[in-house]
Amino acid sequence: MKTFLKDIELDKEVEVSGFVEVIRDQKTMLFVVIKDSSGMLQVAISKKGQPEIFEEAKKLTKYSVVSFTGKKVSAPMVSLGGVEFIPTGMEIESIAETSPVDEETGIDQRLDYRWIDLRGDKQRLIFKIRTFIERVMREFFIEKGFIEIHTPKISAIASEGGAEVFKFDYYGTKAFLTQSPQLYKQMAIASGFDRVFEIGAQYRAEKSFTPRHASESVAFDFEIAYIKSHHELMDLEEEWLIYVLSKVKEEYGEEIKEVFKTEVKVPVKMPRIKLAEVFEIFEKEYGVVIPKGGRYDLDTEGEKLISRYAEEKLGSEFVFITDYPSKSRAFYSKMIEGSKECMAFDLLYRGWEMNSGAVREHRYEVLSQQIQEHGIKPEKMQEYLDFFKYGCPPHGGIGFGIDRFVAKLLGLKSIKESVFVFRGPSRIKP
Amino acid sequence: MKTFLKDIELDKEVEVSGFVEVIRDQKTMLFVVIKDSSGMLQVAISKKGQPEIFEEAKKLTKYSVVSFTGKKVSAPMVSLGGVEFIPTGMEIESIAETSPVDEETGIDQRLDYRWIDLRGDKQRLIFKIRTFIERVMREFFIEKGFIEIHTPKISAIASEGGAEVFKFDYYGTKAFLTQSPQLYKQMAIASGFDRVFEIGAQYRAEKSFTPRHASESVAFDFEIAYIKSHHELMDLEEEWLIYVLSKVKEEYGEEIKEVFKTEVKVPVKMPRIKLAEVFEIFEKEYGVVIPKGGRYDLDTEGEKLISRYAEEKLGSEFVFITDYPSKSRAFYSKMIEGSKECMAFDLLYRGWEMNSGAVREHRYEVLSQQIQEHGIKPEKMQEYLDFFKYGCPPHGGIGFGIDRFVAKLLGLKSIKESVFVFRGPSRIKP
Repeated sequence: MKTFLKDIELDKEVEVSGFVEVIRDQKTMLFVVIKDSSGMLQVAISKKGQPEIFEEAKKLTKYSVVSFTGKKVSAPMVSLGGVEFIPTGMEIESIAETSPVDEETGIDQRLDYRWIDLRGDKQRLIFKIRTFIERVMREFFIEKGFIEIHTPKISAIASEGGAEVFKFDYYGTKAFLTQSPQLYKQMAIASGFDRVFEIGAQYRAEKSFTPRHASESVAFDFEIAYIKSHHELMDLEEEWLIYVLSKVKEEYGEEIKEVFKTEVKVPVKMPRIKLAEVFEIFEKEYGVVIPKGGRYDLDTEGEKLISRYAEEKLGSEFVFITDYPSKSRAFYSKMIEGSKECMAFDLLYRGWEMNSGAVREHRYEVLSQQIQEHGIKPEKMQEYLDFFKYGCPPHGGIGFGIDRFVAKLLGLKSIKESVFVFRGPSRIKP
Repeated sequence: MKTFLKDIELDKEVEVSGFVEVIRDQKTMLFVVIKDSSGMLQVAISKKGQPEIFEEAKKLTKYSVVSFTGKKVSAPMVSLGGVEFIPTGMEIESIAETSPVDEETGIDQRLDYRWIDLRGDKQRLIFKIRTFIERVMREFFIEKGFIEIHTPKISAIASEGGAEVFKFDYYGTKAFLTQSPQLYKQMAIASGFDRVFEIGAQYRAEKSFTPRHASESVAFDFEIAYIKSHHELMDLEEEWLIYVLSKVKEEYGEEIKEVFKTEVKVPVKMPRIKLAEVFEIFEKEYGVVIPKGGRYDLDTEGEKLISRYAEEKLGSEFVFITDYPSKSRAFYSKMIEGSKECMAFDLLYRGWEMNSGAVREHRYEVLSQQIQEHGIKPEKMQEYLDFFKYGCPPHGGIGFGIDRFVAKLLGLKSIKESVFVFRGPSRIKP
């Protein structure tokens, strides 16, 4: 592999390559600043000293790709690190047409040319940090003996009612893309895997145009056997995110502050508020009665408001909302004994929902009944129900949106910036 | 989280849980062996001492899930580690119906009940090892400054001609599932990311019923900028696999030998043979003229034979086949100057193809021409061609089948055993 520009040694004959970032034509000297993912280097071409290179280099345009042979030498007056490169040879790798986007271009047109948009240092940094985040996210669970699985995204088992899914023909039978690895994580528990996680894609055919929805997104899912209360899940998630954020702060805290103007805060504790209490808080603290659709769930405004409360009154960027009425949750959520609420929760971070989580109902008979209570025909769910027929431990888990987390952590406006290539109702290209 | 059975402390009041593995009714004593992913524990229930538990426990069936409170005590005569568990309480978590599969059941029926099939220690070990393999595979590249990406699996850009893809309606436009992250990895290179990798799914609507084909599979892909020869790629891949295999041997070598009866061999060097030479070897060594379809590629028999040659004559389980005629490779493969071959290669391991790799043509004009030479209309590929219009470094990469690698490494007959849930032309469930 080619040595990164930042690692080129002084006074050694080498080849350097990069995108052309700047060209300065000073009649007798031509300065070409080249760039790779590690940094930049100024190449100084003298008309007198390297007449052939000088002429040829005039063809270069911004974003063209070029290789030079020669030596990096000390040049104290050069602002780019006090060095420059004196070439003895040049090869043009690729000539660039004029870029259709620049810093002024709006997000949607930049997405049309995502590969040019991503050339910004800030953009690349997002994905370096994301690589690190996923690494430490995994590390935490692998150290605890979790097995990493890849669940199939092609499925014939209807999950949550079958709405909002992408459907297609699979060798003559109906198939769709899974909205979450939920059912297959539960299958892993029925398989005796005990502790599993997955980083994988999820698909949603939903015409949402918010900054946090996508038709294809990437989530971190985990599922654990022998969980009896959702508080055990929240304990684990809390420990996990504290670990992840402390690692991120250590490695990228300063750079994030400088580039994204936001501070990585490592929480000590994440408050947990029951949904019913949330509405009491709204009335008492803000004189606001939010629910349009009843007190069954929080809408976007409600999420923002309770996040504001957690931040201002409890000093926390994170807040768990717990104990949802079964009506607003999937049929497989386990009920809290003797109540109408289930062992389900959401985690909010800086005003956005990051994940939902729950203890699942693992008892065949109870699950069958809950399916009916949710208005779904049990026959439609038989293949799923079968997972619980031959023995299954009690269990629970969460599905955590990495795209959202990265966006919020870095203060980005939309997940369009935290995903490599965005997919939404009006975006399937590039 | 619940403590694993293997970590339960002696003489302490705790709760233990697991699947029922064995029940032995000895009239005055009932022995229930429970099992989790860490190991087994014998629970000894005395009719006299714990009459209620004794009665209740009679309901248990194989694979039922049960929790006991009580103490683990020393019991030197017990074969399971010289300990047993004396319960003071019991809770039945889940009663199992009689399992429809056992050790005698064939692979296809076992796949119908994959979650029961996976309860075997051997099966779970496959996924523990796979978790480890993917971890060290990533580790190697992250240490070298690679960025991990998630390319979209929903695409509208036709890749290799558009055959054998799953198509579906995407909000009123045509979309399909990508066969490889190829085009998007190349986009990352045009984005200046320099070094990227991905572990992701790939989709192929192909009616293949071999032990190594699947409609949905998981691959490790990497792509690197400023690559000029395919030998650079092979050097890197070789270094990578040596690293991965030495880590696997260190961590799981003994267990793999014991359970899978196969030895993890760490290669020192992987021989490279040009395709043209392969056919010469076939004639000279084996008196075999293989090609039905000409000397453009190897068929399954050819792959087996050259692997046998590499193993017997060169002492290597791996062999690179290089310099393929452009006719047998994708249009984007870069030609070796002044020849009719391209800078493409395959890697075979224990008789199976693990990956193909190549240097890609990054020059807009040349690429346009190659597209035409491959009989594809350039208009159909315009959106892909655009990646190379605004500057792009020379580059290359590979796509490596993890499912296949794990299967071959552990001596499994089919990738059906190395993937969590298999998807093929006649299998979409569970």
